[in-house]
Amino acid sequence: MQSTRSEVKALTFDVFGTVVDWYNSIVVEGEKFGETHGIDIDWEQFALKWRAGYGPAMNKVRQGALPWQNIDALHRLILDALLEAFNITGLTEADKDHLNRVWHRLKPWPDAVSGLTRLRRRYIVATLSNGNVALLTNMAKFAGLPWDCILSAELTGHYKPDPEVYETAAALLGLSPNEVMMVAAHVGDLRAAQAVGFQTALVPRPLEYGPGRVQEVTAHPSDLVASDFNELADLLGVG
Amino acid sequence: MQSTRSEVKALTFDVFGTVVDWYNSIVVEGEKFGETHGIDIDWEQFALKWRAGYGPAMNKVRQGALPWQNIDALHRLILDALLEAFNITGLTEADKDHLNRVWHRLKPWPDAVSGLTRLRRRYIVATLSNGNVALLTNMAKFAGLPWDCILSAELTGHYKPDPEVYETAAALLGLSPNEVMMVAAHVGDLRAAQAVGFQTALVPRPLEYGPGRVQEVTAHPSDLVASDFNELADLLGVG
Repeated sequence: MQSTRSEVKALTFDVFGTVVDWYNSIVVEGEKFGETHGIDIDWEQFALKWRAGYGPAMNKVRQGALPWQNIDALHRLILDALLEAFNITGLTEADKDHLNRVWHRLKPWPDAVSGLTRLRRRYIVATLSNGNVALLTNMAKFAGLPWDCILSAELTGHYKPDPEVYETAAALLGLSPNEVMMVAAHVGDLRAAQAVGFQTALVPRPLEYGPGRVQEVTAHPSDLVASDFNELADLLGVG
Repeated sequence: MQSTRSEVKALTFDVFGTVVDWYNSIVVEGEKFGETHGIDIDWEQFALKWRAGYGPAMNKVRQGALPWQNIDALHRLILDALLEAFNITGLTEADKDHLNRVWHRLKPWPDAVSGLTRLRRRYIVATLSNGNVALLTNMAKFAGLPWDCILSAELTGHYKPDPEVYETAAALLGLSPNEVMMVAAHVGDLRAAQAVGFQTALVPRPLEYGPGRVQEVTAHPSDLVASDFNELADLLGVG
């Protein structure tokens, strides 16, 4: 069955990297945290390693090597290992919890709020992230992201790219998969969504891993491709 | 453990009757639907009977007599029986589906949008309704309700007043129950929330069942009591 763009009723967004700039947010907040706590480390490497631990940790959950736990818990597991690796000592539990919640305080890419605000005029706009509901809700409040609905892998007991995440999201929205368009900077996410029948839009974020580490992505012929959320609104004909 | 109001970080709202005026919304839309479809019935009785079927249908699910199904499905079960009882014939499937979705198009009480907008400045404001996610999301868009997060019984596989609904909501918000305040017009909802440790606010909606059927409710001593959402914001000290 051929899907057409006019059928789309909801846009579901990957969040880390697609909507918010985790790299720069963590580096900036880490450097401030380091100043106030007397920690002199390379926060760029710290941010990259924290993010690098994320996929493997989720895969352990996906494959059953770890019991289900949400991203706050996985971020904390990785953080505790990183604090050791970077020889950071003397932090209180409150310090560690605050640092772990930097993922609730990530800043949006410059086009994200204005683009989502436009897209929301015509479509339901929802998160579809591996981030947990509390993280995504707090982030939306912090960053002013105008979601209609917070959808998360946490609601499904699976992590992306497991098909259950996408299937459950469409079911919760009361839509068939071809009425939903997944928007992401990562082709793996888009291909997994497409495999269950979602339409797809690729919004590359070449600076996701910081300057000097430009990410290259290759669109699938069926992907709508936009350089940011405002161009996505243009391409979808939203004023 | 004594909970204090200063601990509250999120307000969770019952929706049907507490935030939106289902009675008047259904009567008004029903009468218009009747005119365009040549159906001359008492839409006030129709609305009351539709709502009256809701509790028993949910109880069948809660007690295992019906398999899990969401409120859209339960509303449709009740609607199909009502169409027979009122001798309404000749509707297409699209007509019936449209009529069933009147629950997605309920209008807020006059204070709801302004009160929620104020409360949202300090608190996370979320639905906590037996309505399904799609219904609540569509309603929010239709009515301009500024939720931070759509939480629903549907996410838990239980219906209120089962404790799992409240417990899961607090967990998804990353909060302990005493950090959440349930806001409802119905004391049964508040007592069930309180039983798992939520704080509670009673906002009576005496006209929920229409004029001439004034609902009387008796607050528990621990309930914060407000006549509408703006008074609730006043009592909580939100400017």
